[in-house]
Amino acid sequence: MTVSQIDEEVAKLLQLKAQLGGEDGKHVFVLKTAKGTRDYNPKQMAIREKVFNTIIGCFKRHGAETIDTPVFELKDFDIAGQYDPMIPDAECLKIVYEILSELDLGDFRIKVNDRRILDGMFAMCGVPDEKFRTICSTVDKLDKASWEDVKNEMVKEKGLSEGVADQIGEYVSMQGGMDLAERLLQDPKLSQSKQACAGLADMKQLFSYLQLFQVTDKVLFDLSLARGLDYYTGVIYEAVLSQMIQAPVVAEQNGALPGDEASVSVGSVAGGGRYDGLVGMFDPKGKKVPCVGVSIGIERIFSIMEQKAELLAEKVRTTETQVLVASAQKNLLEERLKLTTELWNAGIKAEVLYKKNPKLLTQLQHCEETGIPLVAILGEQELKDGVVKLRKVASREEVDVPREELVEELKRRTSKLP
Amino acid sequence: MTVSQIDEEVAKLLQLKAQLGGEDGKHVFVLKTAKGTRDYNPKQMAIREKVFNTIIGCFKRHGAETIDTPVFELKDFDIAGQYDPMIPDAECLKIVYEILSELDLGDFRIKVNDRRILDGMFAMCGVPDEKFRTICSTVDKLDKASWEDVKNEMVKEKGLSEGVADQIGEYVSMQGGMDLAERLLQDPKLSQSKQACAGLADMKQLFSYLQLFQVTDKVLFDLSLARGLDYYTGVIYEAVLSQMIQAPVVAEQNGALPGDEASVSVGSVAGGGRYDGLVGMFDPKGKKVPCVGVSIGIERIFSIMEQKAELLAEKVRTTETQVLVASAQKNLLEERLKLTTELWNAGIKAEVLYKKNPKLLTQLQHCEETGIPLVAILGEQELKDGVVKLRKVASREEVDVPREELVEELKRRTSKLP
Repeated sequence: MTVSQIDEEVAKLLQLKAQLGGEDGKHVFVLKTAKGTRDYNPKQMAIREKVFNTIIGCFKRHGAETIDTPVFELKDFDIAGQYDPMIPDAECLKIVYEILSELDLGDFRIKVNDRRILDGMFAMCGVPDEKFRTICSTVDKLDKASWEDVKNEMVKEKGLSEGVADQIGEYVSMQGGMDLAERLLQDPKLSQSKQACAGLADMKQLFSYLQLFQVTDKVLFDLSLARGLDYYTGVIYEAVLSQMIQAPVVAEQNGALPGDEASVSVGSVAGGGRYDGLVGMFDPKGKKVPCVGVSIGIERIFSIMEQKAELLAEKVRTTETQVLVASAQKNLLEERLKLTTELWNAGIKAEVLYKKNPKLLTQLQHCEETGIPLVAILGEQELKDGVVKLRKVASREEVDVPREELVEELKRRTSKLP
Repeated sequence: MTVSQIDEEVAKLLQLKAQLGGEDGKHVFVLKTAKGTRDYNPKQMAIREKVFNTIIGCFKRHGAETIDTPVFELKDFDIAGQYDPMIPDAECLKIVYEILSELDLGDFRIKVNDRRILDGMFAMCGVPDEKFRTICSTVDKLDKASWEDVKNEMVKEKGLSEGVADQIGEYVSMQGGMDLAERLLQDPKLSQSKQACAGLADMKQLFSYLQLFQVTDKVLFDLSLARGLDYYTGVIYEAVLSQMIQAPVVAEQNGALPGDEASVSVGSVAGGGRYDGLVGMFDPKGKKVPCVGVSIGIERIFSIMEQKAELLAEKVRTTETQVLVASAQKNLLEERLKLTTELWNAGIKAEVLYKKNPKLLTQLQHCEETGIPLVAILGEQELKDGVVKLRKVASREEVDVPREELVEELKRRTSKLP
């Protein structure tokens, strides 16, 4: 089944959903269909859900409110009071750090810069005011193009003198941390720009908070970061995966030839900055309102995760079922349904096969196919003894658990599962 | 700020999000804005999230896969094998039962019937084949209209004889459980219809599973349930809230006069059925595929929950923050940020005020306003002793907790919170 066929199926289902929903708008819909009608989408959906849950979990850990999917808002702080604007900026970087670490996308760097440092640098290097914007977007190409190409564009297309371009070239090759901010505050040229000094002082302050937040190992003050957007007024940042994800050895087992350059091409996966001026637009009285934004490139992250799962031949579970209620003997459907009900009522994610007399092998195969880690097995003897045989699918270990302790035992065991 | 203004703001934010997102599609976006730019939407969002989490949690407990929001699919069962089709039908009813119980919307009933019983009944009462559909939709009006009005429509508009209408009237007034299915299997007229008998036998079987699933207290076999949809082929069902939600005594304290008939008007909140024929449409080979659907009227549920929250003057929390890291003395910003980082890194939902030297009262007020249940207070003495003062906001109880035990203590306490 191709992706477009799946899309078509899903479209039909959604249409059906709308019909079933009748007149009163949006509905959530559950289908029970037979095997074979589709077999691919749930894996993608499981990946999407994992990404969303990680992001939403992180936002919530930081006190964010949802104002509309996919827009979240972090807690309201009192702007009239005495507060340090760099704390929310640092918290945004902490959030990006946490999300990218948790998603385990590979090594990453978060580049930071400040619009005021860029503007001050351009001014001190002798770029005319009216060319700041266009030069800024040329600098922004440095992550993909060489300095020679960028310089060429500055000089030949945008009319800078070679001397001015070379001065810019010296600055935009600089990378570092708090030390770089300190050093540039002493820089003979930059220190003459009020704007640049304000930006550099804030950068120092930002790094002091980043140290407290324990994220400086991935954050890089990079003067070439320009993010070609007009409305940033202060700190800007961008997270990039710092290396390609290489196809590991297991890929060979899946048909890739040794030496195949199988890799996932990646770029910027998150970004943002401070844009105090812009948000003023939104205020009915036109007031300037401090605002910091984080933007997470979820579509890009989805596709990286999907490609990674494919490369690593990862088994992506599409359900979260913790236990299958099974029987080894015939005529125990009722007992299986009773036990399943007990588990559902206790909040355990449980399944049961709908066959009257399924073979034990069939039931165990279902667990292996769908990744259910535990099986609760009932037989005449277990029923007589008031126990359930609890089997770990992976190790085949079995242990008899008293029926009244089963829920607790399952909760204990599943809290340890990934 | 009115709802339409909020919508406008959100639209602007979404537009901004799209701009920030750059070229690579969908982004998740976090904003930190100042207080006052909006004040209403997060409450609605919190209610929506609660509803969605309840529904999704229930679906997952039953092994459902997401194939596309808002479409879920329950596990694939082997239709070729020996399975009982009434088990999935019963599980759908169990799911509706669990969701409505958990959402605590008030007392409810789930009416069930079977398309085959309706068709068989129409045939045995003497309704011509070509009028089944139109008579079915007339019967479906019985939940809102009186029998007299319905009979009138059957006779005067749809041309049934009065005798035929009266026979239908006798059947559609019947309600019960497994006993009713058993009784109707002996009914002189219905027992002559093969279709009706098949439906009634399945209804008996359905109720036997519903007993095992412990949901028969809310499920009612109701011969007037017709759900005017053509594609159902077997069991049909619909959940209705069985009484209005009355404004309780607390509403008086919020300005409602005693005797005010404040109530939330409700109707059908979920429904579904079996439609084996329809799903065949979706199969590339046109095979008939067994399929049972659950459709949850989430928009209706949202509005009931919102009205209820307003009536009860319920405080809806819009964040999930478990603890505020606070200080009673000056110059402890660094220590507060350090402790907050410790908590974030341990997965605790924590906030800290962005002020350098906030008053303790301001910090406690923030907790009361936003419903944060716990405060971790740092002072010179606590730092010296290696402890944190943990305060319950509601009861003002305080206890010193060794710093290295704080995360465990918070996890222990917050696992008990609602």
